[in-house]
Amino acid sequence: MQDSVDQMPDRDRLTKQIEFVIEMDRLKHVMRQSLVVDGTRRENAAEHSWHVALMAMILAEHAMLKVDPLRVLKMLLIHDLVEIDAGDTFLYGSHTAANKSEREARAADRIFSLLPPDQGVGLRALWDEFEECKTPDSIFARSVDRLQPILLDYCTQGGCWRPNAVTAEQVRTKNSVIEQASTVLWDHVQQLIDDAIRNGYLA
Amino acid sequence: MQDSVDQMPDRDRLTKQIEFVIEMDRLKHVMRQSLVVDGTRRENAAEHSWHVALMAMILAEHAMLKVDPLRVLKMLLIHDLVEIDAGDTFLYGSHTAANKSEREARAADRIFSLLPPDQGVGLRALWDEFEECKTPDSIFARSVDRLQPILLDYCTQGGCWRPNAVTAEQVRTKNSVIEQASTVLWDHVQQLIDDAIRNGYLA
Repeated sequence: MQDSVDQMPDRDRLTKQIEFVIEMDRLKHVMRQSLVVDGTRRENAAEHSWHVALMAMILAEHAMLKVDPLRVLKMLLIHDLVEIDAGDTFLYGSHTAANKSEREARAADRIFSLLPPDQGVGLRALWDEFEECKTPDSIFARSVDRLQPILLDYCTQGGCWRPNAVTAEQVRTKNSVIEQASTVLWDHVQQLIDDAIRNGYLA
Repeated sequence: MQDSVDQMPDRDRLTKQIEFVIEMDRLKHVMRQSLVVDGTRRENAAEHSWHVALMAMILAEHAMLKVDPLRVLKMLLIHDLVEIDAGDTFLYGSHTAANKSEREARAADRIFSLLPPDQGVGLRALWDEFEECKTPDSIFARSVDRLQPILLDYCTQGGCWRPNAVTAEQVRTKNSVIEQASTVLWDHVQQLIDDAIRNGYLA
């Protein structure tokens, strides 16, 4: 499956690729705000990336627009790599979002340039597409990335919602991309939010 | 992207699918023997699953046989789900391997049956193919699954090799599937093993 277009010999390419996958191990130390389902600890960005990729596999049939499942999985597997440099940004914390785009763009510059050039350029373009969130693939990928913490926060009785006084209105507004991707998934989110309000998980 | 073949209404399917992805969160608590690259703690099976999927994306060009990258990613995202029930089995520990196949087959029976039937049957077949390891897709997926802990154990100066007195011969024998998938990757593994012997990471 040789798809390289540059002239770098196989062994040099492999060296850069192996160094890249070793460096990416650091994603296992990037902590997110959400707790895992049993509530015993916070989730890290590597676990989250696996969980959203699994969810995209399982839930792909609910996408309203035609999506390319391979591109969606690739996007989700790399979507948080920039957090190795830029850290995780809490969706409901406006103060932590300062300079997010600049910090993440700088991180992307460094991280994707660790790869052989043709491969780095291809993955950077995929990451940019995910960030811009205008194509069917990126809208669906982003929706799954937004649905997953809603499930965790619901299962942990407002695990990161309650300490941060997150409101139902914030959850609806910040996650509205899900409605663009799938009315079935969005209806499910509405039910979870209504139930979370009733149970006091959400303000 | 509607690909269901049974008659279950969308909402019932979704309920089962959401329950499945919530149950699969437990993979984040299945601990493996290998340490993460900075050596500070052991890796869990969810992080490992993300890491091998990322590696398959990056290293696919080195597969000698033609592989379907989407099937490889799906296999790697689900390959360890059975460990939620069956636990992780240490590759170099013969005693812990007792009844591994039976335990994992029972786990697969339960776990994949949580999904809508058509989807569960499809993923079970993919998991069986991975386990049998006879097709190009499964041979490549398995190779990446074997290469990843070698990288971690090398980077952690024999993190789980030294405490278990693992020998170079064991590493070569237990990971020989990599040679079937890619001579480039296998050559790299040989270099790591030789270097690990020189540095005393491997007996």
